[in-house]
Order: sequence, then structure tokens, then C-alpha cells
Amino acid sequence: MKPFIYKLLLTSLMLCFAARIHAQNIDALPSWNEKPSKQDIIAFVKNVTTENSPHFVPRAERIAVFDNDGTLWSEQPMYFQLAFALDRVKALASKHPEWNSTQPFKAALDGDMEAVMAGGEHALLELVMATHAGNTTDEFSHIVKDWLTTAKHPKTKRPYTEMVYQPMLELLAYLRANGFKTYIVSGGGIEFMRPWTEQVYGIPPEQVIGSSIKTEFQMRDGTPLLVRLPEINFIDDKAGKPVGINQHIGRRPIAAFGNSDGDLQMLQWTCSGSDKRFCLYLHHTDAEREWAYDSNSSIGRLDKGLDEAKTQGWTIVDMKNDWKIIYPITQQ
Amino acid sequence: MKPFIYKLLLTSLMLCFAARIHAQNIDALPSWNEKPSKQDIIAFVKNVTTENSPHFVPRAERIAVFDNDGTLWSEQPMYFQLAFALDRVKALASKHPEWNSTQPFKAALDGDMEAVMAGGEHALLELVMATHAGNTTDEFSHIVKDWLTTAKHPKTKRPYTEMVYQPMLELLAYLRANGFKTYIVSGGGIEFMRPWTEQVYGIPPEQVIGSSIKTEFQMRDGTPLLVRLPEINFIDDKAGKPVGINQHIGRRPIAAFGNSDGDLQMLQWTCSGSDKRFCLYLHHTDAEREWAYDSNSSIGRLDKGLDEAKTQGWTIVDMKNDWKIIYPITQQ
Repeated sequence: MKPFIYKLLLTSLMLCFAARIHAQNIDALPSWNEKPSKQDIIAFVKNVTTENSPHFVPRAERIAVFDNDGTLWSEQPMYFQLAFALDRVKALASKHPEWNSTQPFKAALDGDMEAVMAGGEHALLELVMATHAGNTTDEFSHIVKDWLTTAKHPKTKRPYTEMVYQPMLELLAYLRANGFKTYIVSGGGIEFMRPWTEQVYGIPPEQVIGSSIKTEFQMRDGTPLLVRLPEINFIDDKAGKPVGINQHIGRRPIAAFGNSDGDLQMLQWTCSGSDKRFCLYLHHTDAEREWAYDSNSSIGRLDKGLDEAKTQGWTIVDMKNDWKIIYPITQQ
Repeated sequence: MKPFIYKLLLTSLMLCFAARIHAQNIDALPSWNEKPSKQDIIAFVKNVTTENSPHFVPRAERIAVFDNDGTLWSEQPMYFQLAFALDRVKALASKHPEWNSTQPFKAALDGDMEAVMAGGEHALLELVMATHAGNTTDEFSHIVKDWLTTAKHPKTKRPYTEMVYQPMLELLAYLRANGFKTYIVSGGGIEFMRPWTEQVYGIPPEQVIGSSIKTEFQMRDGTPLLVRLPEINFIDDKAGKPVGINQHIGRRPIAAFGNSDGDLQMLQWTCSGSDKRFCLYLHHTDAEREWAYDSNSSIGRLDKGLDEAKTQGWTIVDMKNDWKIIYPITQQ
């Protein structure tokens, strides 16, 4: 009996401690080069999770917030949600013959992005309302999922959900393994992200915060529905990000990750707390493997944020030099 | 060595399975009488958590939503948040000499509730804006916490946080022990509830949904703040409840608990899904231990909801007969 008991005991103990041993011995961020950015992340996580550390943070308060466009997935040559809107214009065009002679729809149908952009914010808003409203929440969720199964990025020809950053996937998993709750806080549409973030990032719908249009509760033939209205509800960008965080989470995050000036207030709000906090900017420096852009880009402009990061001593990731790979390796 | 090893092994196994054994043998709802309402709850939970059940629901989708006023704590003779607002009027009166001659403030200062209520919704809104806005989110949180440490209910002389329903505390714990995520979805103020719901109900701030005023991000002397503005942002009541649920959670709950017509749309939204769902109304029937009211009450009116519950076969709790005790037993 004795060897059997030893074995059983050993197995029990191994099962109990497997996760812990695992975490101590392997590199949780294998796609990150050994640069200061990686060291900063690991030092921060050790600091707030070590029980005797003066900066120890209880598990319930380990909230980490991530921008999406340009921080978790690419955003060039246009926000992926705009590509979705343009594809929707084409899909809906047969029901809207008037679009053949009305801007910005004509430009969208012609694939003339310059003409679309010439219409400014108002034109984009018109495109979004025409393609995102008028259906139920369930219908819209299906439309997004269907689009993602077939749509391909114009440059890489990859599905959009494969243009997520492998090093950031590792970072999300590393934080969660250390008791963090990971949230998306994006200027993108909340209902555009929720159908796929759990599968792609491991972030469930209730941890996604974004811009939204209004919805209305209706009873149709005894069935309750939420109908999406062509009216802005909330813009989760710039000074709206701390507002969205407070509205949804109700506590201040201890870590924030972004890539543009649109994330600046979220990082300021996160890192002004009195305890140990962590703020990080991704700097798009890799023209070969991804895109290189910052202060002069109309999409994902990083200008004031970069100055503030240097002043405040926030971590800056140089994507070209700090990351071994950009996208997940997939079998295609 | 052998007895020591046996002992160690036994201890390991006991530790591993303690929770499970515990759950199987004890009554998780000891304050509930053996009535259909208790049986309905247990049958539902078994049904959705048993892996081979055709109604099995994965853990991530086990979302349960609870109204607060009249469902988790009492709401008579007035919503407790209104008592807070009236106390705040008194606390702030010295800074507002004009309130001595302006309604509804004069009535509030005189403790003349009839005159306050005579001003209708507009008067209440004025009181709320004057007492809930104009400070930062952090300041307001402290004000609520301070008030709760000293304020006492006019009838029971208990602190308001001890006027929560013991059977509902057991129900919350029972659902969480079975993998449910428990949310509050209340017409009350989201920022009024969040400072204390974790301690009192075990519900963290990010799982509290409620009505809100707008907030604005501001930098003051280099410090970022969220300032509370005297402007309605969202009313989380009636048809607003499914909207709030969708906005915050992004998936449909499988269980909903309420006590008034203000919860009807939340219950309809929850129970219209195709899978096994559970909806429950608390019926305030206990004039002696709590209050008895339904279709004729101005606070927590339950009229259409009761009819719908009967039509749909939802569970109805008769508080007088179904609950052994109302409030937690405290040492006072």
C-alpha cells in the first residue's frame, strides 16, 4: 500500500501546485524581447501581487483596461469597423436605390475612400447609423459574426480577427493568470466588439466598454426585443473613456494600455491614483511587419500622449524592437 | 510514517472536497420555509447546473439580475435613497439660505413629506440634483458611506444596511456557489449603491447597474477628476432595465428577481429566451414583520406584474408565509 499512497499523495500535491510551479518556470511573455517594456510589465505585476509588498493590491481591485483599435488589433489603413460599415453599405444597397446618387453612400459603393473621408465626421456618422441601426441587438450580433467569417484585410488577406497582436494576447493571459480582470475600453462600437472578444481575447461581453447607439425595449407579438436606434448614446473616446470606465466598472483601474491620444485621459485617470499603477503606450514603429505612424496620422494619432508618457515615465513599447512577432502564427 | 501519511492524504482530500460535500448536505436556504417558491428555486438551479440536463447552462452564461429596492432591502415608508437626499438637504442647508423659502427644499427641511411629494417628479428630481451632483465621484462615495454609518430607519431604528432580506442574502450566496454571477439592476442611483453593495450583498461595483447622472472628466491642478453634473444620464427603470442590462452585461440573464411593476420588462426580457429561465416576484404580504402593499402603493407598486407572473407561471414569493425571518439577526 505504501508506494500507492505516496503516489496518490504526490499526484494530489502536484495537481494542487501545478499552476503555481508552471507560472514560476515558464516565460509568460515569449513574444516579447528582453527589453525594458517587458521588464516593466513583469516588475509591476510582481509588485502588486506579492503579499508582503507595500504595493500589494487585492485581487478584486486588479482591474486592467485595454484600448482595442491599434492596441489589441491593427487599425490601418482604416478602422476595421469602418471596413465593416462599407461592406454593409454594399450588402444593403439593393434595398436603397437612392444610395446610388447620395453621398456618402455613393462614394462608399464606389470604394472611393477619399470622397467618403472628405465628408468628415458627419459622413462617417451617416454611414454608421445607416449600417448599425434599425435591427435588434440579436440580429446585429449575427451580422457582425457573419461578416468576420468571410471578410479579409485588404493588405494581409487575413481575417480581421487574426490581425490581433500575439504579444498582447500573451499579456492579457499573463495578467489574468495573476488575478487581473481584463477590460476593453474602446472608441469602437460596444456591440461590434462583444460578439467575438471572448473567443479572440478571452474577454467576456460584460468586460467590453465602447461607444454605443441608443436601444429601445419593444414588445413585438409578445416577444420582447431591444431595437437599435439611429441616435448616439455614448462616445467612449478621449475624455469619455474615464467616464465609460466609471459607468461600467465603478472603480479605478490599476493598469491601462493604449496607443493613441484617444487613450490619454484613460491613462491619466488610471495612473493618478495614490497606489502603484501602470500605464503603457504602444508606439507603432514597424512599417515592415505592421505600420509605422504617430503624430501625423489621422488614424490612431499619438502626439500629446507620447509627450505625456515621457514626462510621467510611463512604459513605451517600440513595436519594431520590443516584439518578436506581431500576429499569431496560424496555419493557412 | 504510515499514519502520518494517511492523515496528510485524508486532510488533502477533505480540503479538496469540503465545499462539495458541504453543498450536498446542508440547506443553502435555511430562512426559506418549505414552500413552492423555495422548491422552484432549487429545481431551477439543479436544472441549469447539472451537466447532462437538457437545460444545462455554461458557467459564463449564468447571469442573475436582482432589483434592489423592495427586492434586496426594504423600500418603505420611502425609498432609502430619498431619506439620504433629505438628510443631505439638511446637511447642506447652511450653505443655501435660499432653501428656507424655496420649495421643495423648505418642505424637505421641515420634514413635510406630503408637501415634498405634492411637487411630483419634478420636485424629487430637484432634490436629487441638489444633493447628488456638484462633487466628484470619490467625494460622493465617501458621503454615502458616512451617511450609512449613522443614519437609522425611522420605524425599526436599524441602520439601513441591516434592513436587507436575510432570505435574499442566502439566495445570492446559493446562486454564486452554483457558478452564477449576481447583478443588481435598480432604479436607484448606481453611485449610491456601489459604495456598500460588495460588503452587504457580496456584489462588486462592476456588477451594479442603476440610474445615473452625467459625469465629466476634468483636470484640476494636474489631478484628473470625474465631476458629477446635475443632468440625468440614464433612468434604469421599467423599459430602461433591459436597456441597462444590455449596455452593461451584453448578454441576456437566465434569472431575474423583482418586486414591482418597475421590474416587469426586466423579467419579460429575461424569461422570453428559448432556454430554461427563471423569473420571480417578491410579494410584500407581511404587515407585521415588514410592510404589506401591492397594486395600490405609490412606492413599489405591483399590479400588472402580478397578473403577468400568474399568466406566465413565474414564481411568486409570499413574504409572510414563505420566509422564516425577514432581516438578518444582529447583535444590537
